[in-house]
Amino acid sequence: MRDHVEIGIGREARRTYSLDDISVVSSRRTRSSKDVDTTWHIDAYKFDLPFMNHPSDALASPEFVIEMGKQGGLGVINAEGLWGRHADLDEAIAKVIAAYEEGDQAAATRTLQELHAAPLDTELLSERIAQVRDSGEIVAVRVSPQNVREIAPIVIKAGADLLVIQGTLISAEHVNTGGEALNLKEFIGSLDVPVIAGGVNDYTTALHMMRTGAVGIIVGGGENTNSLALGMEVSMATAIADVAAARRDYLDETGGRYVHIIADGSIDNSGDVVKAIACGADAVVLGSPLARAKEAAGKGYFWPAVAAHPRFPRGVVTESVDLDEQAPSLEQILHGPSTMPWGVENFEGGLKRALAKCGYTDLKSFQKVSLHVN
Amino acid sequence: MRDHVEIGIGREARRTYSLDDISVVSSRRTRSSKDVDTTWHIDAYKFDLPFMNHPSDALASPEFVIEMGKQGGLGVINAEGLWGRHADLDEAIAKVIAAYEEGDQAAATRTLQELHAAPLDTELLSERIAQVRDSGEIVAVRVSPQNVREIAPIVIKAGADLLVIQGTLISAEHVNTGGEALNLKEFIGSLDVPVIAGGVNDYTTALHMMRTGAVGIIVGGGENTNSLALGMEVSMATAIADVAAARRDYLDETGGRYVHIIADGSIDNSGDVVKAIACGADAVVLGSPLARAKEAAGKGYFWPAVAAHPRFPRGVVTESVDLDEQAPSLEQILHGPSTMPWGVENFEGGLKRALAKCGYTDLKSFQKVSLHVN
Amino acid sequence: MRDHVEIGIGREARRTYSLDDISVVSSRRTRSSKDVDTTWHIDAYKFDLPFMNHPSDALASPEFVIEMGKQGGLGVINAEGLWGRHADLDEAIAKVIAAYEEGDQAAATRTLQELHAAPLDTELLSERIAQVRDSGEIVAVRVSPQNVREIAPIVIKAGADLLVIQGTLISAEHVNTGGEALNLKEFIGSLDVPVIAGGVNDYTTALHMMRTGAVGIIVGGGENTNSLALGMEVSMATAIADVAAARRDYLDETGGRYVHIIADGSIDNSGDVVKAIACGADAVVLGSPLARAKEAAGKGYFWPAVAAHPRFPRGVVTESVDLDEQAPSLEQILHGPSTMPWGVENFEGGLKRALAKCGYTDLKSFQKVSLHVN
Amino acid sequence: MRDHVEIGIGREARRTYSLDDISVVSSRRTRSSKDVDTTWHIDAYKFDLPFMNHPSDALASPEFVIEMGKQGGLGVINAEGLWGRHADLDEAIAKVIAAYEEGDQAAATRTLQELHAAPLDTELLSERIAQVRDSGEIVAVRVSPQNVREIAPIVIKAGADLLVIQGTLISAEHVNTGGEALNLKEFIGSLDVPVIAGGVNDYTTALHMMRTGAVGIIVGGGENTNSLALGMEVSMATAIADVAAARRDYLDETGGRYVHIIADGSIDNSGDVVKAIACGADAVVLGSPLARAKEAAGKGYFWPAVAAHPRFPRGVVTESVDLDEQAPSLEQILHGPSTMPWGVENFEGGLKRALAKCGYTDLKSFQKVSLHVN
Repeated sequence: MRDHVEIGIGREARRTYSLDDISVVSSRRTRSSKDVDTTWHIDAYKFDLPFMNHPSDALASPEFVIEMGKQGGLGVINAEGLWGRHADLDEAIAKVIAAYEEGDQAAATRTLQELHAAPLDTELLSERIAQVRDSGEIVAVRVSPQNVREIAPIVIKAGADLLVIQGTLISAEHVNTGGEALNLKEFIGSLDVPVIAGGVNDYTTALHMMRTGAVGIIVGGGENTNSLALGMEVSMATAIADVAAARRDYLDETGGRYVHIIADGSIDNSGDVVKAIACGADAVVLGSPLARAKEAAGKGYFWPAVAAHPRFPRGVVTESVDLDEQAPSLEQILHGPSTMPWGVENFEGGLKRALAKCGYTDLKSFQKVSLHVN
Repeated sequence: MRDHVEIGIGREARRTYSLDDISVVSSRRTRSSKDVDTTWHIDAYKFDLPFMNHPSDALASPEFVIEMGKQGGLGVINAEGLWGRHADLDEAIAKVIAAYEEGDQAAATRTLQELHAAPLDTELLSERIAQVRDSGEIVAVRVSPQNVREIAPIVIKAGADLLVIQGTLISAEHVNTGGEALNLKEFIGSLDVPVIAGGVNDYTTALHMMRTGAVGIIVGGGENTNSLALGMEVSMATAIADVAAARRDYLDETGGRYVHIIADGSIDNSGDVVKAIACGADAVVLGSPLARAKEAAGKGYFWPAVAAHPRFPRGVVTESVDLDEQAPSLEQILHGPSTMPWGVENFEGGLKRALAKCGYTDLKSFQKVSLHVN
Repeated sequence: MRDHVEIGIGREARRTYSLDDISVVSSRRTRSSKDVDTTWHIDAYKFDLPFMNHPSDALASPEFVIEMGKQGGLGVINAEGLWGRHADLDEAIAKVIAAYEEGDQAAATRTLQELHAAPLDTELLSERIAQVRDSGEIVAVRVSPQNVREIAPIVIKAGADLLVIQGTLISAEHVNTGGEALNLKEFIGSLDVPVIAGGVNDYTTALHMMRTGAVGIIVGGGENTNSLALGMEVSMATAIADVAAARRDYLDETGGRYVHIIADGSIDNSGDVVKAIACGADAVVLGSPLARAKEAAGKGYFWPAVAAHPRFPRGVVTESVDLDEQAPSLEQILHGPSTMPWGVENFEGGLKRALAKCGYTDLKSFQKVSLHVN
Repeated sequence: MRDHVEIGIGREARRTYSLDDISVVSSRRTRSSKDVDTTWHIDAYKFDLPFMNHPSDALASPEFVIEMGKQGGLGVINAEGLWGRHADLDEAIAKVIAAYEEGDQAAATRTLQELHAAPLDTELLSERIAQVRDSGEIVAVRVSPQNVREIAPIVIKAGADLLVIQGTLISAEHVNTGGEALNLKEFIGSLDVPVIAGGVNDYTTALHMMRTGAVGIIVGGGENTNSLALGMEVSMATAIADVAAARRDYLDETGGRYVHIIADGSIDNSGDVVKAIACGADAVVLGSPLARAKEAAGKGYFWPAVAAHPRFPRGVVTESVDLDEQAPSLEQILHGPSTMPWGVENFEGGLKRALAKCGYTDLKSFQKVSLHVN
């Protein structure tokens, strides 16, 4: 039974838990980190690390996406960001940073909004996808549910290995009075590439989304301000566990089709990665933790994709914590060695060490580790 | 059953919830924001947005009240504020701001107290109400329960469309030893205009207040410091839900008379608006969020009406967050576009988007949306 | 049944509540503040307000204690403070303040320790008690349980109307191996003046203390740092309610002897006074809230009596919030008018208004008001 | 039954408690501090105080370890720290401090990593152990589980009275695929000195560890950042109580072998010491609270042993709170007198006073004191 409270006479609410509320617990024989396997297999692809980058222009320069692949993760491009709108990407990003430094966060948001008002140049976008593809690394491309019908064929033709259909919150069968709503199941069935879709936050929507044929489901809405703007706060521990329950039922329903769960939101350090996987995730999306990398396009600044919304942005440009320091490489952030004891460097080491301390050697079995609520 | 805890041997307390404690949850098919209807019908009046302004002199200049109507909300004047006491309203407000800037919050409070010690000039008040009325916008006038018998006839004659009888906390049948207490039911029955009354915070008082014939009940006491001063903290999520329960019972008792619930307190952003309606409110009162508007009388400063109490003020003059910035218009705050991702601009957009994401298209049905306690 | 949780296997803890956790709730007809009676009758004495001052030298100059009586409260002198040790009280206090301003809190503590190392001059002490007594106001004198046998006869002879036997935590029958422990019951029985004793925090100790013949029991340990120093945090809402339960049982046991409960600790504003009485207190001790008064000896600084302990101080010298402002009179703090909306001025007004809003007219019946846990 | 919550559909978590969540409660006759006995007997050794120092180079200079013994506690050396790697210990520590002051915490961490990359000179280490031993004080030496097989014989030969086998988290039978894992039971059985081992945090691991023959079990992982880095937060109150439950069962299983529980983590003041013992600990490890001592090697800076990890440090160099002040002696920190009311001086006084106030006279019986959850 769920844990419900009565917030007022006759009005109930379910009690939910964030990643900050929980921790993983050791209660078995410890193992060696060297014995831990962190590989992530999804569809025909295999990655050394269960990490995707958030599809933000603040991260995903061509160099960054290629490096993400080299370091064992899955690099993701935002098809509707600045890549396909501005030939000089560096200049565009420099404008955002200048607006932030000379003005404030609102000025930076206005600049992002202006830069995104430029039309999408699909040839430019295709060129850039091809450029990454030519590096030999696997590349995923993110499109919004609103524009996926139009843009997906273009990015697939340009060489996208995986398609990520991602909004802060989507459902399998969006209701649209007048106008034709996208039938995600039919659409995904018509594509030649595997699809990762989300974000979803609850059991029912997740189950419906799994039935569309997506190979992965994103849980959470990234690093947004939906809590203040929409009154919708996603409690990630609960959301991941609920979607994992939908997966169990979908596995039963299909006699064994396994859909990957990818956590995107409230992941600030390697401890959060550990907890997300402990709740049932197979992989996680890293956003702001990667903004410190010297390969990141934002040169120490980060903003989520939703920060550029023309009328209702729910993300913001932020400085990464240590602009004055020498930026670490993406390799150091992902593989170490670390000189930062707060779980912001050596994500691989943190993940392996946590599994080893708890007595597990692979990610899937770690989804059963004991949990505490503090 | 309510959730009670024993705080000490034989002494129980009920567990209650604030808006910050809860969030709304998506669990249905998403819809388009364009399909969402936010109109608010109360008595014979219809508003595009379910918003009233707090009756503070820091907001409600004549220009502001007229603009509030033009932007689709209900403008409210405080009959017992500075409007009816000082011919030069700008000068009065300038004195408050000067006291704040040269002194401190206590100095500003003293100035407010002095300015409110001036006698009420009912002709001046009537002129000003008429001035707003002449703009063609609907105008509501707020009077205190103490003075309503004397002032209500004057403001109604001057053209008030709705009467708001509001204190931080009122009851339908105030007990007064010696002296005659106001019988709110008889009084409201004798008036020609619809009455909104409050604040009330509990089921019983709300039910009694509904029986007075008021068309709307205000829940909460505005932005006051009753918690520190009186040990009385209103948990708005619980209070709204309790009053909504009273409404259900009153609907049954009367065979269908629907009394509107209007939330006034702890509403800082569009997310709070969403949560208040999710708990059962039909509309909300916006106070400090509107103080940023360039049309607001306080020029970036805000204080609730209760800040001027002669002996026991429970409100304070505060600076709105971005005095250095260019103030946005009331239109931008209510309708966007926003460059602020924290739910402080585009209240309409936030409300519509939350309903759409949760799969609802009108405010009334949204009162049943699923809730989480975080 | 108490609410217990298992903090570890086989180890239980009781859940307790502080005044900050609770609030009082209106659910009856409101009344007028004018109809509220706040008088406090204890033994043969009657006070307009249910307030004692904390027996700190930072408050209790002769002028302050006399003024406390004039304003309707009970003034209390610390027999073991600086009064009886230093002929020039102003100079002694000036040294404490200088140590604070030139050094830090530790320096101020050292100075307090040094000043208290001076021997107690009982003639000086007696003179000063007599001086206050001569004003015609009722005066209470606080002695520690360690020294009460020796000092009590002196202060009673000097004119103390009430004796306050107070440590941060005391029990009716202290166990002393070797040496003779004080039998509080016999001792109190031998005195000519009524005794208030404490602090106690639990049902059993309170019941034993009531059986000693004390007319009042102090709940709480004042403003100390026992939480950090001793791991002993008093949750005042629970402690007051538990002691009130002991009183009910003691009333039954004695066929009607009523012992007063006086709350001392976590009382920072008028809201805390309201909540303490709502939990079962008959009166409260005001410490730091009175330090802002221009009559206070500490000239804006405050420290509890326990700050002067020679080897293990658990209190500290603090600046009162508004040294730069003009200090209000004790009259203004207790009776208003207030220009501070945070419950730090007009304690009488706050208390009367809370009772009136909740529909009560006297302190005793208000002990049954409904409570919320937030 | 444990208290479990469902964080998501089908996924449970146990609710746990930190020392900050609890407090001890007086409910018996008070006693005199003079009657309280704080001696700690473990194996053949007896200490006046139940305190060990954390085996950090920031504390444990030769002078410090000797002084720790003189003051009645157990001094502990880290065999794998700077002692055995650098002939000039002062210079090594000066480099860490310089890196912190000229750079930042990451720079200090890098310096620690570099200094620990120097090879272990077992002759130098042996000399230094012998030097402390020659003082006549009992000395314990800490080794890591990874290196214990190699280093233990050396340090025992050099004169270690007790061996502390300590990692942030260890288990009795570490699983090692390929390579031979340490069988702790056999190993401990082969040694001539008593062994204290840990940290462990749960019932099962503790029970297994007790079966190895260790005379003491460390609960907790010291002052690390495992919460951020590994998602593993130890709730000390729960962990200590769980291990105490394992001890009860082990006592029954063995017919009376008593294993000591030593708390290491979240101990910031004397109140935390009191609470750790109240949960079931026999002794506590003091880390950062001792860094203020003028005898501490770090000259006001502190870092836990884990801060020097070559690839994944989970501790950090911090300034102790009052570098500008004159540092107190270790004697003053442990025995007082205190001029600091926050439980950071006079740990003995705090512990004795808490027991006395609660009516207990020895540490073992105090493990049954009543607890509150706040």
